[in-house]
Amino acid sequence: MNYRLDFSYDGSDFFGYAIQPDLRTVQGDLEEALAKVLGSTATHVAGRTDAGVHARHQVVSVTAERETSPGVLQRALNRMLGPEIVVTSLTEVDESFHARYSAVSRTYRYFILNRQLPDPFLARTRWHYRYPLDLAPMNAAMGLLLGERDFSSFCRVAEGKSPIRSVEKAEWGREGEEVVLEITANSFCHQMVRSLVRECVELGRGNGEPQDIVEIADARDRNLARGVAPARGLFLWQVNY
Amino acid sequence: MNYRLDFSYDGSDFFGYAIQPDLRTVQGDLEEALAKVLGSTATHVAGRTDAGVHARHQVVSVTAERETSPGVLQRALNRMLGPEIVVTSLTEVDESFHARYSAVSRTYRYFILNRQLPDPFLARTRWHYRYPLDLAPMNAAMGLLLGERDFSSFCRVAEGKSPIRSVEKAEWGREGEEVVLEITANSFCHQMVRSLVRECVELGRGNGEPQDIVEIADARDRNLARGVAPARGLFLWQVNY
Repeated sequence: MNYRLDFSYDGSDFFGYAIQPDLRTVQGDLEEALAKVLGSTATHVAGRTDAGVHARHQVVSVTAERETSPGVLQRALNRMLGPEIVVTSLTEVDESFHARYSAVSRTYRYFILNRQLPDPFLARTRWHYRYPLDLAPMNAAMGLLLGERDFSSFCRVAEGKSPIRSVEKAEWGREGEEVVLEITANSFCHQMVRSLVRECVELGRGNGEPQDIVEIADARDRNLARGVAPARGLFLWQVNY
Repeated sequence: MNYRLDFSYDGSDFFGYAIQPDLRTVQGDLEEALAKVLGSTATHVAGRTDAGVHARHQVVSVTAERETSPGVLQRALNRMLGPEIVVTSLTEVDESFHARYSAVSRTYRYFILNRQLPDPFLARTRWHYRYPLDLAPMNAAMGLLLGERDFSSFCRVAEGKSPIRSVEKAEWGREGEEVVLEITANSFCHQMVRSLVRECVELGRGNGEPQDIVEIADARDRNLARGVAPARGLFLWQVNY
């Protein structure tokens, strides 16, 4: 049997998605629960997230010898996984479905609380940034990066992996006191969204010109990028199949 | 000098408002910070909250020998208090102002996430209740409790304190997938809101009749009440002067 699990999690109290010995991870909690109800832990995930990063919509596929009713499985998992992880949908799928390879693109959102005072109820899920941001240069910069490109300057190196990614959409908007980026690409390299957010915020503050982002990208040199935005504002928002 | 501080806090990681030795409390954090910037810790608070209860709007008054600019004080406190507590306003007030005694009433809100699935991002601030709730008997019961009354049945005993309270307003409403109580009284005894919420939720599920709540109140016997709703859904919403 091949199952598809769609789920959400608040990443604040996890050391990221990927399993690590002696640390609490989303994959660790999930596979421990799956082992109990399904006798299987061979999961594939759509997009790994770093420590403190959240998922509104994450997907894993898992194969198992046992056949179990999806509804029963979902309820059992939600009982075991506690409040931070919620399985929103669980279905039996064709054996060809693979959460990672079948996904055609991923959408992330990054949320900035852009006002003078922080909000204690958004401390885990927003970057509080007190200075005014001009969205025009931020959107201009994102527009210049659309399409296929080498993102080495905005990625933590991963040995043997291609740094070429294709960005379909990247748009900043204002929603009340929040400034929000929605970005969709075939896939993302490590820390790519947080690195682009940080670059844009510098531009939004008046530090540099939108064209700079292309020069940094073309140089393929991570030392030219200006760091990363905090993990807590980042959400894996949607996996597209 | 007499100062008035208005502030918010996420109560999840505190052992309540009131200071306790060796435990992290809101008052403990606040007075530690005040001692540094003002050399004073003689605070009075509008409404103590229990472990896990939040405040959108809480007020303390504090007197100090030193005179300091309110803006400087507010920024210094916010730097020290970290993300869970945010001072939203700080003003110098007449010496007659007392956060507790000057308050004429308090408003609380209680939030229930009323749908099948929990939401990991609301786990700290909502009671997740999966069964349908009928608001009509819940509102009927609250209507029967308006006015001055002995709330012993809904309060944890506090030696030597009167259990008489006057409820001005108490109304349940539905906002999307949430069911929300707003309740205003001159003041509240210990666990009063959570006790009333629990009673109402039982009625909303069809367990009993609205009139029962008056009988329980009239008996002035806490053993007749059906327990308390979880702390995490409760917010001190507004202190009225």
